[in-house]
Amino acid sequence: MFFLVENRRHFASDNNAGICPEAIAAIARWNTGHVPAYGSDSVTVKAQSIIQDIFETDCSSYFVFNGTAANSLAVGSFCDRQDAVLCHRYSHIETDECNAPGFLNPGLKVIAVEGTKGKIQPDLLNAKLAGSREIHASQPRVLSLTNTTELGTLYRPQEIGQLCELAKGRNVAVHVDGARFANAVASSRSSPAELSWKAGVDVLVFGGTKNGLAFGEAVIFFEKHASKRFLYRMKQAGQLASKLRFLAAQWLGILENGRWISYAEHANAMARRLNDLLRTIPSVEIPFPCEGNAVFAHLPEPVVTGLHRMGWRFYSDVGPGGGSRLMCSWDTTPEDVDQFGADIRRLCNDGYA
Amino acid sequence: MFFLVENRRHFASDNNAGICPEAIAAIARWNTGHVPAYGSDSVTVKAQSIIQDIFETDCSSYFVFNGTAANSLAVGSFCDRQDAVLCHRYSHIETDECNAPGFLNPGLKVIAVEGTKGKIQPDLLNAKLAGSREIHASQPRVLSLTNTTELGTLYRPQEIGQLCELAKGRNVAVHVDGARFANAVASSRSSPAELSWKAGVDVLVFGGTKNGLAFGEAVIFFEKHASKRFLYRMKQAGQLASKLRFLAAQWLGILENGRWISYAEHANAMARRLNDLLRTIPSVEIPFPCEGNAVFAHLPEPVVTGLHRMGWRFYSDVGPGGGSRLMCSWDTTPEDVDQFGADIRRLCNDGYA
Amino acid sequence: MFFLVENRRHFASDNNAGICPEAIAAIARWNTGHVPAYGSDSVTVKAQSIIQDIFETDCSSYFVFNGTAANSLAVGSFCDRQDAVLCHRYSHIETDECNAPGFLNPGLKVIAVEGTKGKIQPDLLNAKLAGSREIHASQPRVLSLTNTTELGTLYRPQEIGQLCELAKGRNVAVHVDGARFANAVASSRSSPAELSWKAGVDVLVFGGTKNGLAFGEAVIFFEKHASKRFLYRMKQAGQLASKLRFLAAQWLGILENGRWISYAEHANAMARRLNDLLRTIPSVEIPFPCEGNAVFAHLPEPVVTGLHRMGWRFYSDVGPGGGSRLMCSWDTTPEDVDQFGADIRRLCNDGYA
Amino acid sequence: MFFLVENRRHFASDNNAGICPEAIAAIARWNTGHVPAYGSDSVTVKAQSIIQDIFETDCSSYFVFNGTAANSLAVGSFCDRQDAVLCHRYSHIETDECNAPGFLNPGLKVIAVEGTKGKIQPDLLNAKLAGSREIHASQPRVLSLTNTTELGTLYRPQEIGQLCELAKGRNVAVHVDGARFANAVASSRSSPAELSWKAGVDVLVFGGTKNGLAFGEAVIFFEKHASKRFLYRMKQAGQLASKLRFLAAQWLGILENGRWISYAEHANAMARRLNDLLRTIPSVEIPFPCEGNAVFAHLPEPVVTGLHRMGWRFYSDVGPGGGSRLMCSWDTTPEDVDQFGADIRRLCNDGYA
Repeated sequence: MFFLVENRRHFASDNNAGICPEAIAAIARWNTGHVPAYGSDSVTVKAQSIIQDIFETDCSSYFVFNGTAANSLAVGSFCDRQDAVLCHRYSHIETDECNAPGFLNPGLKVIAVEGTKGKIQPDLLNAKLAGSREIHASQPRVLSLTNTTELGTLYRPQEIGQLCELAKGRNVAVHVDGARFANAVASSRSSPAELSWKAGVDVLVFGGTKNGLAFGEAVIFFEKHASKRFLYRMKQAGQLASKLRFLAAQWLGILENGRWISYAEHANAMARRLNDLLRTIPSVEIPFPCEGNAVFAHLPEPVVTGLHRMGWRFYSDVGPGGGSRLMCSWDTTPEDVDQFGADIRRLCNDGYA
Repeated sequence: MFFLVENRRHFASDNNAGICPEAIAAIARWNTGHVPAYGSDSVTVKAQSIIQDIFETDCSSYFVFNGTAANSLAVGSFCDRQDAVLCHRYSHIETDECNAPGFLNPGLKVIAVEGTKGKIQPDLLNAKLAGSREIHASQPRVLSLTNTTELGTLYRPQEIGQLCELAKGRNVAVHVDGARFANAVASSRSSPAELSWKAGVDVLVFGGTKNGLAFGEAVIFFEKHASKRFLYRMKQAGQLASKLRFLAAQWLGILENGRWISYAEHANAMARRLNDLLRTIPSVEIPFPCEGNAVFAHLPEPVVTGLHRMGWRFYSDVGPGGGSRLMCSWDTTPEDVDQFGADIRRLCNDGYA
Repeated sequence: MFFLVENRRHFASDNNAGICPEAIAAIARWNTGHVPAYGSDSVTVKAQSIIQDIFETDCSSYFVFNGTAANSLAVGSFCDRQDAVLCHRYSHIETDECNAPGFLNPGLKVIAVEGTKGKIQPDLLNAKLAGSREIHASQPRVLSLTNTTELGTLYRPQEIGQLCELAKGRNVAVHVDGARFANAVASSRSSPAELSWKAGVDVLVFGGTKNGLAFGEAVIFFEKHASKRFLYRMKQAGQLASKLRFLAAQWLGILENGRWISYAEHANAMARRLNDLLRTIPSVEIPFPCEGNAVFAHLPEPVVTGLHRMGWRFYSDVGPGGGSRLMCSWDTTPEDVDQFGADIRRLCNDGYA
Repeated sequence: MFFLVENRRHFASDNNAGICPEAIAAIARWNTGHVPAYGSDSVTVKAQSIIQDIFETDCSSYFVFNGTAANSLAVGSFCDRQDAVLCHRYSHIETDECNAPGFLNPGLKVIAVEGTKGKIQPDLLNAKLAGSREIHASQPRVLSLTNTTELGTLYRPQEIGQLCELAKGRNVAVHVDGARFANAVASSRSSPAELSWKAGVDVLVFGGTKNGLAFGEAVIFFEKHASKRFLYRMKQAGQLASKLRFLAAQWLGILENGRWISYAEHANAMARRLNDLLRTIPSVEIPFPCEGNAVFAHLPEPVVTGLHRMGWRFYSDVGPGGGSRLMCSWDTTPEDVDQFGADIRRLCNDGYA
């Protein structure tokens, strides 16, 4: 078999990137001796402690393997089997999890709410919240927001606060899918606390994978009562790592030194650089504001084809309107952006458009 | 907070050990550029190919995060919701998974079969297999064996073959929980093929974590038809890593160079060294043959207390009869064994017994 | 406690009606001696045989307790856990089952499709069918139609045929929720076969409760292979009656003598009588054609209040546009309709409108 | 097809019997006019009120379709997904429900406890209760007793009290599977209250089917807090009858007039009559005391064959030791018993033994 791993970056997804050097170094750093399994080790405790510092509150945090499980188990912690989660039509838990929320929380229903630019429209949320609570309908129990959103946009603290207020008025808890929470913090210039519990969020999935780790998302409960059985749920769902220290260690690698935020700032800056560049090309249309590490762009179909032929990888039919989604990562370089932008410009100019 | 990670090894569990250097090196080695997520990358393909070489057959393999999920999803691949898995009374899926098999395969029932030394007794299996198949009973569909067993013993190829024959005669598939499969291969001096598909095994969970990896078990289907929806099940159960190459890379790190078997041979040798040492102490009783990397020993209660006071970590009430379980790992040293053995001997001699 | 059962009929739901005399007589008729439980009795076999006669084909039928279970287990018979059911936005399994389909078929997702008058629009169905089949999305495996629909309209054989053709082109099975199948047969003047398997339907839930029985829906598989484990699923889901003969007997009571169709014709005729009557009142708007036993009407709000004050029971905020739903039953009399209509007319005339 | 329903009674099961005349009469009695569906009707309320009278307490009761669902949903009301139910090795939920408890309560594990004569042995229960509560094990949350037991024996109030005390000491709730609760009341000469909440029982499934109804079991919560979501669970599990009044009406038919207890007394008397008769036959061995409506007997194998050839129906390999189980019903007559007994005696005497 011909076997090649190319040393090149693309714009397909921030989960196509590798691991940041600090995460690898931390794995090696804490690879000493035997420690208790399943989280009863000092590396895990230290990582949990730093998360409390960063969020400026006494929260409970848990490290699980991936986002599918993190978000599913997090929302399910507030739900009984007849309950429902309200989320945006384009949210990951609605469209991209093969119904993991309903599988890992048997009986749970995911109900989609509309809104432009990937963000839930408050009055439409309110209508769903005010809907029937009788015996035949799934009962709304969690509102799930994604920040930054699947369309690369940002919920600012006051927007989160407004939605949380509507939810809380109906005894509905609030979850944030923060696969790109670091990007949201970097973009909003708000603090982690302002983007979460201070705005009313009860549980946050803080994404590590897209922030430079190999695996691992932190599930952070600000409403600690809801987490009391979370370890059991992790165990039963196959999400309790025996060598948990090596999930926690990766977090230590980026949390202690502030890398988690500087990498996100960098990815966001690369996205803005690409966004600014594309805005100068007349045949390219940008449907959503660039508020994170994603750029959405309507490229002429032959340009998409041409770019793919040149070997560039990116998704070309994403979200409402079906544009191309161009993701930047912690490791995207200005040269990557400039080369990709130049190729787009050339193909557009060459009459492909 | 006082924060200490001690650089010391214990006998509590092979999952308390760290990561072997080859696994870390492999993570770094394949950490280049962007690659497709979810297993569509050449690192994963290469690891799958090497597994085919090692097992000398055209098997399908999948890399999941941990053993709970690996075993649950593996057995469930053969089952509909009214089906049952037969396993040993002391098997992990019966006693230590918080009913993950029944949760990740809704409706599935785990049914325990008896047998001495952690191994299923053929005639008792046959009685369960011959039991009622009417509408009110869960239907046996999978026989699950653990090799090496939870009591540190070994199923040899002919023993597996005999149980497989009974199972196959009732249209029951055979699964092996190989959390310590490498130890079984090393101990039996049989080939991986002889201990699996050649004996009749349909699916094997080949454990990486206890073999020196940070995370990751390989689910290897010899009956490939049963795996056709496995990727969906991984996805839905939160077991499909986006950066899957970093699970696969760790396997490359120990498979290509034969480390998987040499580490297991080493751990087994350390267990035999400890076993031999304990056999010379009159007040210590060894209830099961040492055929893997575990030693079971009945130590006088004051000796157990004394060892724990000295800082040694190990479980002291495991299995039938409730003896101490002493596990050796890929990183256990002869000095560790000798020091631990000397401490036991001294406590026994000091009149603690 | 003051205890009153009034001897009066309403327009709230056909499940508020009592039992037809033929069903009670049949229960008494077959209440002789001891018979085997769980369906191995000759009453059940006889009812299954008559269903084959009525549907003119070699179908497999099963009697379960209610519609929630009947529809959930029927669609689930074609599905694995990563699959999805496509149904109309206003269908019962989407809006009124507290997510029973997703609970009784763990992992299953219900996906809504739009269309006017309660009927799925073919091109919108096709778009859903043609959607992504990759690993992250639930996989469409069943199309579920309701006939007559929740909005009181009818799918005619050719409409069903067209939707079935689209589904079958994508390897998607077709289910009909026939809670009011008898009304559809009566309304369409087609045969049961033409409204089901001849049009491409794989499984039909033939509703008995709204047709005059106390309990009991028949799940009729035309694609018999899909039913091979149905008895197990009934058993495990708590839907296998021990005294099954008393579900089957009720069916015998209305099938042998054609009552099932004459009662439905009667209920439909009562709905048309009410519909015709309301059409003569200027302030009443009828949004959907009356093609079954339901009339939807936009009544002035004070008229709704006035009718409720007079003791009439009906739902007043149902479906798109939120009109009143007025259901007729097997036992609705012309006098009931005329009195109800007269009250509506009087309230409208009295300036309530 | 040749079609015969024989007017004859057997000893196979009390669920092979028909419906008592009072239940049919009550269905007809309450079959008047339209009433609200799903339990919001006065017939249901009246039946619930009478149950409170009979049990002399302010309990919450619900009518579901069958025992599989009743017991599964009842135990699940106390459990989260990592929890376990402890029950006797020969209990119905362990052996005869196709794992419905684990299916209708996803994640739940049923754990068997031993004990002679179908009754849990207190010290063995205590050992299970005292077992590990760590993260890897299912957590005992419910103790389930069956009364009368599957082996025809009786728990008396003090025996229940003793087991409840052990359970309560570990924060474990107590459920009684009372498929034959009426027989237990009749046999024990205790009151319903003494056999349930006064002894510490939290939820009782009071069986109607084996007491003479067509369908329907009453789930009676004495610990009312646990029932707060029970209607949702009934709905989602397909156990909420739309025409619920016809389950409740049957209960009215036997509760108001005391028939529930007189039928049970009769069935018990018939069992004692059979028991006394069999005790006079030397080749018949009676392994368990006759304390309900069942007689267990070891009949010589040729006698079993001979009886089956004569057309008698009964199960001949039930429980430990595999004897014949001979069930009496509300409709068993002294002549049935005498004729059956005479046939047994004759076969035994004829040298079949």
